[in-house]
Amino acid sequence: MNKIEHIGIAVKDIDASNQLFAKLFNKEPYKMEEVASEGVKTSFFQLGESKIELLEATREDSPIAKFIAKKGEGVHHIAFDVTDIHAEVIRLKKEGFVVLNEIPKKGADNKLVVFLHPKSTNGTLIELCQEII
Amino acid sequence: MNKIEHIGIAVKDIDASNQLFAKLFNKEPYKMEEVASEGVKTSFFQLGESKIELLEATREDSPIAKFIAKKGEGVHHIAFDVTDIHAEVIRLKKEGFVVLNEIPKKGADNKLVVFLHPKSTNGTLIELCQEII
Repeated sequence: MNKIEHIGIAVKDIDASNQLFAKLFNKEPYKMEEVASEGVKTSFFQLGESKIELLEATREDSPIAKFIAKKGEGVHHIAFDVTDIHAEVIRLKKEGFVVLNEIPKKGADNKLVVFLHPKSTNGTLIELCQEII
Repeated sequence: MNKIEHIGIAVKDIDASNQLFAKLFNKEPYKMEEVASEGVKTSFFQLGESKIELLEATREDSPIAKFIAKKGEGVHHIAFDVTDIHAEVIRLKKEGFVVLNEIPKKGADNKLVVFLHPKSTNGTLIELCQEII
């Protein structure tokens, strides 16, 4: 794994949170994007080589809506940049991690993404992501 | 804020979690350190310009013990590298953030650190840190 690609933070109101995090970071989000397949609206702030991704649910059955109902707002996942996502899935399965989707799917920000189940990673939802070239 | 300095993850058993995260990242932690004043043992993994810090409580009244009792294992805080921590405290207070310790204290990994209350940051505990030169 090359670097922290982003930290995903679940929020109730992305417009309000964009204002809050813009004050925190002293800069504006560089883009907003809706991922209909995941039921989320996202915004991204760049910090060094990594990003903070805010996520608001766009429907009740969105994973983000369920997360907030259960745990409240806060860090939802950590995403790591990988060079070869298919090779990493094979390696991590061999190491005993539970892969939620073995076939990488299209995520926000032009990425192929795979999630690992938090029960195999100390309660932290881990995302692997590889830039689509 | 210059970059994500580290993500702090609260764990129950740092030796077991070091093994788990070493498998995840395919590398060993580069150091372990005890911060007696905070009641924690920590370990650090380097990923690009950022780190993952694992934290295990060393006593029952440690903030990490309280966190795990309430929320279970998982992301405890996000730390951002700043150039001038005193100037950032002044700026963030003006913006309405609740600063937990206005006078920076000595944290792990040779840093001066300040925490912002999660109630003012969408449920996420934010740490500012500046390298002690």
